[in-house]
Amino acid sequence: MNIPLTSHPRVVIIGGGFAGLSLAKKLARQELQVVLLDRHNYHTFQPLLYQVSTGGLEPDSIAYPIRKVLKDFPNFFFRLANVETIEPEAKTILTDIGSLKYDHLVIATGSKTNFFGNASIKANSMVMKTIPQSLNLRSLILQNFEQALLKSDLNERNALMNFVIVGAGPTGVELAGALAEIKKGILPKDYPDLDIRQMQINLVQASDRVLPAMSEVSSRKAEIFLERLGVDVWKDVRVTNYDGETVTTETDLCFKTATLIWTAGVEGATIKGVDSKELLVKGNRIRVDRFNQVEGLENIYAIGDIAWMEEEKFPHGHPMMAQPAIQQGKHLGENLIRLTNGKKMKPFSYHDKGSMATVGRNKAVVDLPRFRFQGVFAWFVWMFVHLFFLIGFRNRVVVFINWVYNYIRFDREARLIIRPYKKKEVAEAAEVKNV
Amino acid sequence: MNIPLTSHPRVVIIGGGFAGLSLAKKLARQELQVVLLDRHNYHTFQPLLYQVSTGGLEPDSIAYPIRKVLKDFPNFFFRLANVETIEPEAKTILTDIGSLKYDHLVIATGSKTNFFGNASIKANSMVMKTIPQSLNLRSLILQNFEQALLKSDLNERNALMNFVIVGAGPTGVELAGALAEIKKGILPKDYPDLDIRQMQINLVQASDRVLPAMSEVSSRKAEIFLERLGVDVWKDVRVTNYDGETVTTETDLCFKTATLIWTAGVEGATIKGVDSKELLVKGNRIRVDRFNQVEGLENIYAIGDIAWMEEEKFPHGHPMMAQPAIQQGKHLGENLIRLTNGKKMKPFSYHDKGSMATVGRNKAVVDLPRFRFQGVFAWFVWMFVHLFFLIGFRNRVVVFINWVYNYIRFDREARLIIRPYKKKEVAEAAEVKNV
Repeated sequence: MNIPLTSHPRVVIIGGGFAGLSLAKKLARQELQVVLLDRHNYHTFQPLLYQVSTGGLEPDSIAYPIRKVLKDFPNFFFRLANVETIEPEAKTILTDIGSLKYDHLVIATGSKTNFFGNASIKANSMVMKTIPQSLNLRSLILQNFEQALLKSDLNERNALMNFVIVGAGPTGVELAGALAEIKKGILPKDYPDLDIRQMQINLVQASDRVLPAMSEVSSRKAEIFLERLGVDVWKDVRVTNYDGETVTTETDLCFKTATLIWTAGVEGATIKGVDSKELLVKGNRIRVDRFNQVEGLENIYAIGDIAWMEEEKFPHGHPMMAQPAIQQGKHLGENLIRLTNGKKMKPFSYHDKGSMATVGRNKAVVDLPRFRFQGVFAWFVWMFVHLFFLIGFRNRVVVFINWVYNYIRFDREARLIIRPYKKKEVAEAAEVKNV
Repeated sequence: MNIPLTSHPRVVIIGGGFAGLSLAKKLARQELQVVLLDRHNYHTFQPLLYQVSTGGLEPDSIAYPIRKVLKDFPNFFFRLANVETIEPEAKTILTDIGSLKYDHLVIATGSKTNFFGNASIKANSMVMKTIPQSLNLRSLILQNFEQALLKSDLNERNALMNFVIVGAGPTGVELAGALAEIKKGILPKDYPDLDIRQMQINLVQASDRVLPAMSEVSSRKAEIFLERLGVDVWKDVRVTNYDGETVTTETDLCFKTATLIWTAGVEGATIKGVDSKELLVKGNRIRVDRFNQVEGLENIYAIGDIAWMEEEKFPHGHPMMAQPAIQQGKHLGENLIRLTNGKKMKPFSYHDKGSMATVGRNKAVVDLPRFRFQGVFAWFVWMFVHLFFLIGFRNRVVVFINWVYNYIRFDREARLIIRPYKKKEVAEAAEVKNV
């Protein structure tokens, strides 16, 4: 890879997600050369992917060109690349566009969908971790209704209109709520010759409550919101298989469906060379010390979802979401600056700012460290926070306009099948590494 | 196809472009059953496709769900289908989702790219008639620069940064201008480690002026605008071949390029059964009388690009653009209503409202029937007219916001490689019929 050699130490960052980008920004105008690698040329604002899947937003409002973030910083380099192997001994990474030496390496590869080893679910289900995946889901949802129109067999038609979402974390809950709103506001008008009442939205959760990472009051309230919207919530139900037609569970419950959306788990997106058993903990996350250093490897750091850092308050690592990634990125940036200035690094502490999830219009739940609230005000807080964290002024304006329009008109206009989704692509899409 | 049989005559419209949609809207609330078929579930505002290709707009701003247009009309049916054959004797069409009887059939299939029989150009060039094709071009343009970064061979690098557009009609001119603006405003900042001055934009035209369908003063002015932006305009040069590396011409001029964009011609998108030599004229358009009736076939009409209607003022048919399509659609709608009311149909006359093209910021040319103007005012007129003809309030607002942002910031934020473009897809994409 032809990156010019300079006298400055070279920091290579793998991944332009929340962690990688906030680190990169911190390193601007330092005596460092920064090389950022990603397999996409854009940063994805993952919390709003479900709105792309449900026709509320187009990709450009939640994606941002990485080069645009870096363009004001001299000595910064971006390369569109897939990192294949890390060779810690040689301080080198191997990619599909050549190899590169580093002085400091930061793994910020994030996480990918975890199917817990079930190849059949992996081959037949939809996931929603990247923009192409979300666009595939958008196409499939719409195609299902176009298909349903053509079926005279009631079972086939119902299977096409039955959506099973496995995993009631924020992604599953938000997607279920958005589908319920489409069912109510859009589909009956778009498909007057279909009986949309037959459409089912099933949200299946292995544990005893939805949003298990949030407070119990938020879980309870979110479940009430979901049920009010017509989502069928199944708790304490573990899905065992899906063959493309039938979802089986540990109980005698089963679902006939053409669409299973798997939001039941993620795991670290590891890279060969730094994926030995000693380095990893549960969920394929890389164990790091309080300085985000990969234990036992010199000059290699991990931040964000992929990093497992134990703190007193977080004995099982930090939650795999945007806030820890952003904070770790910033903190590691400060530490690397300290290092180049010959100072000692400071240990990282996560400041839990709370968490939130939205179920539908006027319906959200917010857990702050000191208090919790639900409903209309929570929904406005949710919108404000998400607009605030979006990168780019234009993105904020476009998202805001779309939200206002969708709110007033009960509409979602990006219900476009731009690229029809073909089942065979599923397996390939699932293979793609989530760097 | 399970469309309910009613006592009303059934009008089947093939194609939801400008012609098909304006016809459908006219037939609202009549004693008719209307079935609209299209292979996409959205209407495409083709005049702005070049802005999708160059990262200025996302598809949702120039696409509009067809079902949303029809949703307020009872007795209207939309089906996502590819029409394969028309059987005029049996008054039946055969599609990929089954067959359908009609009382009146309207062919509004539009046009597709015409390669004039050159298989090598067809297999190796990019086209821009649909949204997926425009997104492919957007990806390829960005991929070329990412690739160019990796090349140490100067010839290879220059070929990646050389864009050859064949055909200087409105599409070719507008695309060339947009590329020139990207070259000026965006690429040098995005790719500081590439010498963007080496980027070339070549616009090749077989005849002796650009925009040959417009007035000579507009042609001259557009050429001046293009040259001011740094586009190399080649007139009187006929391209003979492109093998994926070299564009050859009838002169000794040739271009080494990784990207040929073919906007040199269109032809009617015919359908089997109504494509015999007797029915077609030059460019595979279907000959119709002044009532848009296909000559010699009962109850079959053709409107828009596919229709060739001779008028005194238009002995070679109407221009293949939005205005004749919209006017013919409306007029045929009125005629069909007259027919069902037992009245006589009226002949169609095209009201030429003029034509226009934009080259870049503050640079457009407008030909009105009575006067012509160019420059800043023309550019504002161009923008106003295009906003006005876009379907949907939200689309207009989103396009407007993006234009204002792009104008003030000299920016285009949708420079995202959402789905990397692979060369092998070219041939397949070209195969897809433009219904």
